[in-house]
Amino acid sequence: MAGKKVLIVYAHQEPRSLNGSLKDVAVAELSQQGCSVIVSDLYAMNFEPRATGKDITGTLSNPGFFNYGVEAHKAYKKQSLSSDIIEEQKKLQEANLVIFQFPLYWFSVPAVLKGWMDRVLCQGFAFDFPGSYDDGFLKGKLAILSLTTGGTASMFSKTGVNGDFRYFLWPLQHGTLHFCGFKVLAPQISFGPEMASEEERKRMVASWAQRLKTLWEEEPIQCSPPWYFGQ
Amino acid sequence: MAGKKVLIVYAHQEPRSLNGSLKDVAVAELSQQGCSVIVSDLYAMNFEPRATGKDITGTLSNPGFFNYGVEAHKAYKKQSLSSDIIEEQKKLQEANLVIFQFPLYWFSVPAVLKGWMDRVLCQGFAFDFPGSYDDGFLKGKLAILSLTTGGTASMFSKTGVNGDFRYFLWPLQHGTLHFCGFKVLAPQISFGPEMASEEERKRMVASWAQRLKTLWEEEPIQCSPPWYFGQ
Repeated sequence: MAGKKVLIVYAHQEPRSLNGSLKDVAVAELSQQGCSVIVSDLYAMNFEPRATGKDITGTLSNPGFFNYGVEAHKAYKKQSLSSDIIEEQKKLQEANLVIFQFPLYWFSVPAVLKGWMDRVLCQGFAFDFPGSYDDGFLKGKLAILSLTTGGTASMFSKTGVNGDFRYFLWPLQHGTLHFCGFKVLAPQISFGPEMASEEERKRMVASWAQRLKTLWEEEPIQCSPPWYFGQ
Repeated sequence: MAGKKVLIVYAHQEPRSLNGSLKDVAVAELSQQGCSVIVSDLYAMNFEPRATGKDITGTLSNPGFFNYGVEAHKAYKKQSLSSDIIEEQKKLQEANLVIFQFPLYWFSVPAVLKGWMDRVLCQGFAFDFPGSYDDGFLKGKLAILSLTTGGTASMFSKTGVNGDFRYFLWPLQHGTLHFCGFKVLAPQISFGPEMASEEERKRMVASWAQRLKTLWEEEPIQCSPPWYFGQ
């Protein structure tokens, strides 16, 4: 898929981790396809996760009563968001596909990646009212979560202690990505790499590389409750 | 319930917000009951959300391959976690009840509060293997999420665009709090305060204050899939 633009939002501290390898193999495979690939390496960037008044340059619309959502929305329209947010929004605007590569922390993304979502996906840029879900402003783009877990696949099944893995995907895939208009591809979940052998970890990386070869032909999931909670 | 200890983990930038009022009324009501109440005001503390090597003081167990979970676990046992984490763990250790007060960001907690969970609830302190869910190390404690939403209650119903509010509670209540052994009380959800009248917002605060009067008599929820996804 030569010419396609891919943004990888990557949240792991260790380049030699399985997350690092999964990110590296995605860069290699997609580049080989002729895609242009950009990586936002959040820990290396020391990306700011906290949503505060520092995100708004210039004067606040209501300095006496700080409402982050309202101020960020207005600052987006006035092009007065802080430069790190603007930079990420530009990358996102250009991208045809966004890959989120991260280890599952507490059934969700690590805080540094949560902060990327909280700050970058602001009203006016990623959505508005109207302008959410199928009409979200990032419509036409694809997104995929590629994550590693501490628990095994059986622990993340309907009868496992952690419940089905689809349960924890709801806030991320539906409440965030779908909300902003993304079409969501099925997640790539590498279960329990720390409990796996070196050979099994290599297979996890190879399996992701293999999937990426035909990723552009995949149909997105039907992102609604039955996919997540159906029998 | 004189003598009980309460920790309020509070994540809002604006003291005069509805979240600020809900926090204030909880401090007032619980203090009046004779409880001792501590507030961790995460934005005011400029609490660090990123899980990095800075959380480990002294030498890393494996400097050539940084594994946050492993290093934090070992540092906990050696009492060499960074002081801000130790401080929060002490407050949590003392608490009989923990109230999380926050606005819903992307169907979850704001990044600053996610970072509190990622960093404070480390292996060895909050859980271990074995030592999770009903055997989590914070067993005997109560927890409750008190949150505000952007959307209305009907948007967060089974047939609403956002799906049932219980869906997004799964990673927080089950995957985090229950995992660490907490008994979880039913959430206090103040729906759509920004779309509500001043009078309705006052009722939201009054209703929380009223509930707190008999909170100690409440039975925890049955924290398993049927509570979240049942018909």
